[in-house]
Amino acid sequence: MSTQYCGLVSQTDLGRIVSLCGWVARRRDHGGVIFIDLRDREGVVQVVCDPDHLAHFEIAESVRNEYCVQVRGAVRARPAGSENAELASGQIEVLCESLTILNPSSPPPFLLDDDSLSENTRLTHRVFDLRRPRMQHNLRLRHRVVMEARRYLDQAGFIEIETPVLTKSTPEGARDYLVPSRVHPGSFFALPQSPQLFKQMLMVAGFDRYYQITKCFRDEDLRADRQPEFTQIDCEMSFLNENEIRALFEAMVSTLFKNVLGVRLNEPFPVLRYSEALHRFGTDKPDLRIKLELTELSDAVKDVDFKVFSGPANQTGGRVAALRIPQGGALSRGEIDGYTEFVRLYGAQGLAWVKVIDSAKRREGLQSPIVKNLHDAALAAILERTGAQNGDLIFFGADRAKVVNHSLGALRLKIGQSEFSVAHGLCETGWQPLWVIDFPMFEYDEETARWSACHHPFTSPKDEHLEQLESDPGRCLAKAYDLVLNGWELGGGSVRIHREDVQREVFSAMNISADEAQQKFGFLLNALQYGAPPHGGIAFGLDRIVAMMVGADSIRDVIAFPKTQRAQCLLTQAPSQVDERQLRELHLRVRQ
Amino acid sequence: MSTQYCGLVSQTDLGRIVSLCGWVARRRDHGGVIFIDLRDREGVVQVVCDPDHLAHFEIAESVRNEYCVQVRGAVRARPAGSENAELASGQIEVLCESLTILNPSSPPPFLLDDDSLSENTRLTHRVFDLRRPRMQHNLRLRHRVVMEARRYLDQAGFIEIETPVLTKSTPEGARDYLVPSRVHPGSFFALPQSPQLFKQMLMVAGFDRYYQITKCFRDEDLRADRQPEFTQIDCEMSFLNENEIRALFEAMVSTLFKNVLGVRLNEPFPVLRYSEALHRFGTDKPDLRIKLELTELSDAVKDVDFKVFSGPANQTGGRVAALRIPQGGALSRGEIDGYTEFVRLYGAQGLAWVKVIDSAKRREGLQSPIVKNLHDAALAAILERTGAQNGDLIFFGADRAKVVNHSLGALRLKIGQSEFSVAHGLCETGWQPLWVIDFPMFEYDEETARWSACHHPFTSPKDEHLEQLESDPGRCLAKAYDLVLNGWELGGGSVRIHREDVQREVFSAMNISADEAQQKFGFLLNALQYGAPPHGGIAFGLDRIVAMMVGADSIRDVIAFPKTQRAQCLLTQAPSQVDERQLRELHLRVRQ
Repeated sequence: MSTQYCGLVSQTDLGRIVSLCGWVARRRDHGGVIFIDLRDREGVVQVVCDPDHLAHFEIAESVRNEYCVQVRGAVRARPAGSENAELASGQIEVLCESLTILNPSSPPPFLLDDDSLSENTRLTHRVFDLRRPRMQHNLRLRHRVVMEARRYLDQAGFIEIETPVLTKSTPEGARDYLVPSRVHPGSFFALPQSPQLFKQMLMVAGFDRYYQITKCFRDEDLRADRQPEFTQIDCEMSFLNENEIRALFEAMVSTLFKNVLGVRLNEPFPVLRYSEALHRFGTDKPDLRIKLELTELSDAVKDVDFKVFSGPANQTGGRVAALRIPQGGALSRGEIDGYTEFVRLYGAQGLAWVKVIDSAKRREGLQSPIVKNLHDAALAAILERTGAQNGDLIFFGADRAKVVNHSLGALRLKIGQSEFSVAHGLCETGWQPLWVIDFPMFEYDEETARWSACHHPFTSPKDEHLEQLESDPGRCLAKAYDLVLNGWELGGGSVRIHREDVQREVFSAMNISADEAQQKFGFLLNALQYGAPPHGGIAFGLDRIVAMMVGADSIRDVIAFPKTQRAQCLLTQAPSQVDERQLRELHLRVRQ
Repeated sequence: MSTQYCGLVSQTDLGRIVSLCGWVARRRDHGGVIFIDLRDREGVVQVVCDPDHLAHFEIAESVRNEYCVQVRGAVRARPAGSENAELASGQIEVLCESLTILNPSSPPPFLLDDDSLSENTRLTHRVFDLRRPRMQHNLRLRHRVVMEARRYLDQAGFIEIETPVLTKSTPEGARDYLVPSRVHPGSFFALPQSPQLFKQMLMVAGFDRYYQITKCFRDEDLRADRQPEFTQIDCEMSFLNENEIRALFEAMVSTLFKNVLGVRLNEPFPVLRYSEALHRFGTDKPDLRIKLELTELSDAVKDVDFKVFSGPANQTGGRVAALRIPQGGALSRGEIDGYTEFVRLYGAQGLAWVKVIDSAKRREGLQSPIVKNLHDAALAAILERTGAQNGDLIFFGADRAKVVNHSLGALRLKIGQSEFSVAHGLCETGWQPLWVIDFPMFEYDEETARWSACHHPFTSPKDEHLEQLESDPGRCLAKAYDLVLNGWELGGGSVRIHREDVQREVFSAMNISADEAQQKFGFLLNALQYGAPPHGGIAFGLDRIVAMMVGADSIRDVIAFPKTQRAQCLLTQAPSQVDERQLRELHLRVRQ
């Protein structure tokens, strides 16, 4: 029905008769001549309907926005002065000889270039919303990312293998979506939170290198960047160590950015230990574009009078740290108060600060409510370690380390993304990837009084920490790694446990009894008995990668049919009521 | 840890020191020297452990089948006479200088080359079963099929777009798998039976060409070739007519066979109308390798005494047909009795037959229990139309057309696959694809006394049948097409309805009220209002394609972790009981 895409008609087609199919993006009547901007996925072309050339001109008069039409006509140069440099087809137009309405359109629910719509409106009319050039671009870029990833992995010898969607519920980590079984009354499948155990079993089965770009499911309360179903680039390989795995996927991410965005990431990516990341940035996913760092002060303020500092400094698990803001002296008292409110959201009791007016004058050159409570040595340490210059502002956090990291880490990000930061060059643009490694194996859950896995319970401890699994689980580090880009975790993985005895020890450290382990993970423990190879893997959040690449605020803008934060599809109205007959077949009753 | 794959070590590596990781496939002790067949995904290499060269020879003595080991050693030529021409690595061996046990193995549950195992045993120990070279081959070929399909579609301008897995239940066709919503008590998602409506909405959204290789779900009682979750190559495109769509996918299938199997399919594929397929082969998915055809006799036996023939011949919807078996006279009475029993499975009351001893003698030259009841004109028509030769056997079916087609179609297949058929050249080898087109729009369901869609209710009627939607739905043909290969339906699709009024008429012809249509398919009807483009698509059964390519009896042999016919995973024991807490969160109770 068409000879080419509207958006691709160009000067090379001059004089040619073309057939085009598309949608009426805009229709103007100019002195008896009708101009139609005809749109398809590749862009827009101008169609001229002149009653002298078009037999059934009344058709042109009857078309409205979003009508689907077919046009036949000759390509000619636009009259001098009417070219549009912003369009690929801006030098030409099509003189319409025949116009067919393929399908009329009701008046559209909104204009495609209306940027003020609520997300509810957009999701309710998603089919129409997807016609926006922005959404077309996002989903096509997503396709290219996926194709490039597949190409890279295929060339690296990875085999795509599908794992089950209907699988077993193992209430670990997040909440499962369940699927009732009709054939087995009272039994349920679960949708996979990830193909973790299946991919490990594929390694035991000897496939050596596996990948899958696949949906994962978590029934969690949703935040801006979460969806009930999301897509992972999921990989696993045998006989490679942690460094080799990281190198392979560092190259993959670089290839994606190069081939899709034309961006060269700086290789090798920096590698930061988890402990160092927390110390310097207060987070395990630092945004390295922001040129601000935390400074350790705990040892320097142990004996100051100021209890707000000396308390945490002397407490196990406490921390005192500073965040220097170069030229931050320019921040107003109101702005500082705002930041004080801000850190309260992260559990901080307050936000001590010092403005450095003239560091040569020592104490007298500092403006601050707290200096009077700090002795000279502490002040000297603060100035020296932070490297403070005249005009700087120093913020302080003092609390349990978790609170200090959380609040100063958030403050660093908040200030780093502020206009002040941009104006003072504290924040670079571009892409700054890094690896974070050496995560702890376990974290202590105060509520359940149990150690739980930081990554997941199939992550291998570092060889030198194997002995401490039982005696001191809190000290065990894991062969785990995250890939972080501009403050977002793009992917994470680990070397896995391939020895059955070690896997049992890790379960035991987490207070999972042998019986429970057998019942939940018996198939894994069984598989590990048959010469399981050393193996490890990684999973990338595809939605997140694409959202970053296109600069979308939410992953909903890179998913064709996303759910709302109430886990609903506004387009189809899912979830919905079902027939009583369906429930009976599934042996279920709804609780009233 | 390794320099290359075991199975790829070859003469080009002679003299080189290699590191290899793999599994002990076999271990023999020959005069104090231990030979290990080391296996990985690429094949096997022979490793020689000679106490003169291997310091810790006791390690070699301790390894057993399926141990995972690492070997370092020099590649050398095998001693003359001990080469193995069947192995890629058959000319060489590796003289082991260092041997490390990466992981020992318990005694394996079975031998990998044991071909007598029950499927239950194989699925219970699936991880181990997947180490079989056959299964490795199947899943790797599946990967290649998928990569080739993606490459083809990508080059043809198709965009891969993911559609939701958690979607809306529309109890049409097969039974849905349901997923209870936690956030919306009493509401359920459904797993998609196919992305049909989403892909149509992507066309309305203007993506022009969509594809996805995706899981689909049907909660049906399973047959040999069905799984609760199966994979489709799912495609949709705008502005192409039926012929153009078929041409595009004919080329895709040909490309897959050429690039994966090195097989050239004969193009263009034959195209058969549905009615012709039923008339000639009794089925809409004929296996064209079988050189047997049905012959129409209804008009020729209307006035014979034999009520078994004249009854159906005079009845609306009745049919009398013959199936000639060249040289079938050689079949014994016992074999004929066997076939008579066989057709009863398909609803036939019996199986009349005629052996042609000497056709020149007319009636006297025929051996048959029924000829005495047939007049000369009928006999002449039978002999002439079937083209019977001396020595042939003719079977007859007479009943409602459905029963005749079903039973003679099955008999054709049964005989066509028999040894007799092979011996007499009635069955060719190779690949014989065809298109079946012009399916009916509707079929009448006696039970519900309603017309239901043969394909699905979104299929477009032929333009010339639009007028009959209401007056005579049984006569309407659809713009639907199936791709059939060697008797299997590989894929099927249709041009869709893109006009809202036509869609409403089709719903109405199926006795779906306007209210019901709005409630179930409102989002589609709504989307069709906004200039929906003419569009159509197709979906291929990936599991089936791969199973055919590798010659597997069941699609379970091309799926890594399939379910049994009782819809269970024997490896993980899914489905399983879940915690009462999980059910409470989902507002559900199990019926006792």
